[in-house]
Order: sequence, then structure tokens, then C-alpha cells
Amino acid sequence: MGLKFIESKNLDLEIKRDNLYFEERLDTSSDWIEKRTGIKTRFFTELDTEEMTKKLVKNFKSDIENLDLIICASFSTKRRMPSLSSIARETIGANENVLCLDINLACAGFSAALILAEKYLEKGRKALIFACEKISDYMDFSDRSTAILFGDGAAGVIVEKNEKLFISDTKSLNHENTLNLYEGETITMEGKKVYRFAVEEVPKSLKKLMCESDLKPDEIDKIILHQANYRIINSVLKNLEIDEDKSFSNLDVYGNTSAATIPIVIAENFEKIKDGEILLMSGFGAGLSVVSILMEC
Amino acid sequence: MGLKFIESKNLDLEIKRDNLYFEERLDTSSDWIEKRTGIKTRFFTELDTEEMTKKLVKNFKSDIENLDLIICASFSTKRRMPSLSSIARETIGANENVLCLDINLACAGFSAALILAEKYLEKGRKALIFACEKISDYMDFSDRSTAILFGDGAAGVIVEKNEKLFISDTKSLNHENTLNLYEGETITMEGKKVYRFAVEEVPKSLKKLMCESDLKPDEIDKIILHQANYRIINSVLKNLEIDEDKSFSNLDVYGNTSAATIPIVIAENFEKIKDGEILLMSGFGAGLSVVSILMEC
Repeated sequence: MGLKFIESKNLDLEIKRDNLYFEERLDTSSDWIEKRTGIKTRFFTELDTEEMTKKLVKNFKSDIENLDLIICASFSTKRRMPSLSSIARETIGANENVLCLDINLACAGFSAALILAEKYLEKGRKALIFACEKISDYMDFSDRSTAILFGDGAAGVIVEKNEKLFISDTKSLNHENTLNLYEGETITMEGKKVYRFAVEEVPKSLKKLMCESDLKPDEIDKIILHQANYRIINSVLKNLEIDEDKSFSNLDVYGNTSAATIPIVIAENFEKIKDGEILLMSGFGAGLSVVSILMEC
Repeated sequence: MGLKFIESKNLDLEIKRDNLYFEERLDTSSDWIEKRTGIKTRFFTELDTEEMTKKLVKNFKSDIENLDLIICASFSTKRRMPSLSSIARETIGANENVLCLDINLACAGFSAALILAEKYLEKGRKALIFACEKISDYMDFSDRSTAILFGDGAAGVIVEKNEKLFISDTKSLNHENTLNLYEGETITMEGKKVYRFAVEEVPKSLKKLMCESDLKPDEIDKIILHQANYRIINSVLKNLEIDEDKSFSNLDVYGNTSAATIPIVIAENFEKIKDGEILLMSGFGAGLSVVSILMEC
């Protein structure tokens, strides 16, 4: 039993920052940032996560009569009650019997929410799955090792349960303070450890799914990896022997928007993901966690 | 397909406050608090939610070989990365393939997590579902309308998927600022609106489940309602025509611990919930949300 993407939307944010912005303020250079991360610009917003949620979900035009579930993935929302998912339900005027919940699995949150939707829904029923991250609230803009990496972002999909292929793999490793956030503080990260974790564990997880479904690299049509660093993305693709042109990426424009990276990529490439294609996805980050999906679109 | 409670644990907290504590500090009286709410004492802690999680999950002794899922329900954790669920996994040494995620649906979070577990697990597989609330971090101790109501708390269950009866009903209504929390502020609540919502919507939700399973009030063996106010609990029982002695309650001792109230009740009454008994549960609160379950134990 699987999921079909019915519609996908990204929220445009108003403040665009290029690498020069950081070069002017920190001991770093525009070139260095681009060469080390692949990031050229990122967006920030003055909106809070409640306002972002309302603006995002108003963009969806699909029929929501069969909607049974709304999940918002976020590690960075300051809105704790009511949940962003229940604000989304009210905004789109969905049925009151929709189960609304917010989840936090950091950068792997959107993939995890898709897995929950696939388990929760009955055939023909729908879910609205979105991510809403205002990471700028938790960034230290004086720390050149993290300030350059992140952006705010919100995007989502409406999915419908069908009978196509959908398998997943999840992993949660020891955290050892590798990627941390405690309320009132800012994000801290040991970049090298996160890099090593990602280039080792993400290919393992995706190979397991390809093995389980008996699919070879050339039978994978599209791949969407969490947009954290282009060197991680390239390493994973090379390890999997999957052609670069099957991989969607917009890290250069948006930076790392945590749970929002995968749905932003989906929204921007929605027309290019065709019915029947085999899509690989993998979210990974704090936990340390990997949440991967192999699905027929 | 249903769930069996394998084990349940509550975390003892170190700071006990009776109503006199508030009488001495606020324009209120010990008697008034008890008469209006049913609460006599509540517990607070100096531990943070990460420490609470570690202490709680170390209490579980069950075999965790078949564990596939860990969910922590919390609206009040300051730990944003890594998730409390991944900290729990590391603490108990569970398999790295366990899906770990934190959810926030306020007071209905534990019931929602049970529903997700029932959908996620395959037969014979297990989940650790717990709530961890440090509400004292978000209370205004000078506001007599909210300070007297809440307590900190952490408790959970290990469940195993089986083939018994398990049905659920969820509702998410308009919020209209009835029960709010934004980071950096404290909980605000319009008590009368929450009361009216609860006494109307909770019985409707539970009657729907009884109707769907064709069970009459005298066929319900046990009922556990979210512990917010004894007048809500009594009104719901009366409306449902379910005997008070079938209802477990410990509101007098713990106050409202949000998502933790239902698992604390389960942990304290674990031996009294017998195999084959029909159990009703309902969590309700901010959203405004109701999440109800009817299950055969």
C-alpha cells in the first residue's frame, strides 16, 4: 500500500540573503561558503510559524473532502498550543474529525510524517503533510560554522493512499551531542561528525530499500535527499551509483531548511515526478536519524 | 487489530506542592481549589525533560527485542534536538531501526500516540509510548486561574500489537485562543470555554465509539479520562451513564499533567486493568482536540 502525491506547495519567503551578507558580517567568504556547502542564497521571514502555516496551506486547491490526517513536521516552532496542524485544519476548513498533530524529528520529520500517513490512511483517503521551520529563531548569526547553513522554509504535500509500492527504513543512532538544540539556546553542530554519519548511513539505508524491492540503480527514476550539503548529496549518489540527473536539488537557493527541504524540492519539481516512477527519498539529521522511503509515484 | 499494555511506569518527582502553597502566595484558598478542581497536590521537578525521559525509561524491564517504535508526547519540552524519543532509545539500548519521534497534541498527545502505534506496528511487534511534560517551565505562578491546575509528570507504556478490538475517534475544533502557549510566554486559558468544550465533545466522541462497537455503558469495564478537572470527569461519566467506580482518577494527587495524565493513571492502576476488559480512554485539550480510544485489553 502506498501514497500518491496529489498536490505540493512551497511558501515564498520575503527576505533573501546571499553569501555576501555573511561575508560582510563574519570571518568567512562568499566563495568559501559556496565551495564547502553548495549554498548561494537562503530565505528568512518575519512571519511566525503560525502565520507561515496559514499562508502555506491557503495555497492548496485540492479537494479535501476525504482528508483524515494533518501532520506538521517542525523542530523550530515557537507555537506550542494549539498545534500548527490544528491551525492548518481550521485555515483550510477541513472536516473536524481530521487527526491533527505536530511532530519533531528534526530534518527527518517530513519523511517520518509520510510514513505515518501511509500507515494511518485507508485506501482513497488523504492527508496534508507539511513542514514549517523558522530556524532563524534558533540560529547564532555570529557563528560562521552554522549561520551560513540554514534558512527558514515551509512546504507540504497532499497525499492519497493507494496500493502502489511504498517501503521505508528508519534508523536512530547515538547522538553524542552532535546536533543539538535546547530552548533558549542556539543550534550547535559538530559538522564533521554529521557529515561522516550522513555519507555512511544514508546510502546504507537506501541500499536496504533497493535490495528489499529488488531494484537496481538504473531502475530508480528520481531521488530526493535532504538538502544539507552538496558534498553529502554527491557522495550518496556516487555510493548508490545513481546518476546525478535523477537527483533534484535546490540547496543552492534555499540552504538547509530542515524538515522543509524535501517538500520544497517536491513542490518545485512536481510536474517532473511522473506516475509510475520509482522515487527514493531520505531525510537525515539530529538524533542522529535517517528516515528513507522507496515509493512508486 | 489492537494493542496490549505490556508494562507501564510512572516517574516519581521530588517537589510536592499542596494547595496551601498557593493559598500562601495567591489570592485563593486551599478549599476553593479543591472544591473547584478536585486537586489537592501536584508535583514539580528540577529535572529537565531529557533527564526525566532517561529516569522514566530506565524503569521499564520488559523485553524490547521486538520494539519498532518510540513516541514521546510533550508540549512542554525545551529539548528540541535530539528528540526525547531518540534519547529514550539510546537510554534503553533498543535496536537502531526503531522509529523515534516526538509529537505534540497537548493533553491529547498520549492517546494520539497510541493510535499511531496501533497503525504503525505489525502483529507481535512493540512500541514504547510515553509522555514527558515539564509544564512548570510554562506556568505563570502569579496567575491564580492557571497556576493551581498543572503539575509536571512523565509516564508511559510498552504496548504490543495484537488482533483485539481497537477503535478511535478524533476531533479538532476551532481554537479561538481558548488554550494557548507561545514560546517565551506562559499558558493562557479561558477555563469556561474549555469546560464547555470538554463536557460537550468528550461524551459525543465516546458515545460514537460505543455505538460503533455496539457496546452499552454496562459493557464498559474501565474508563480513563484526561485528568483536568473532576467536574469534567463527573459530567462525562454521568452523561455516558458509566458508573464512577469504573473510572480511574488521580487528579487529586497529580493535578493536570497534560499528555502524562492518562499514562500516570495506567501505571498506577496497571494490575487492575484485566485481560479482555473493555477500556475507554479520552484525551482532550488545546486544539481544541479530542482523541478517544475504545479497546479490548
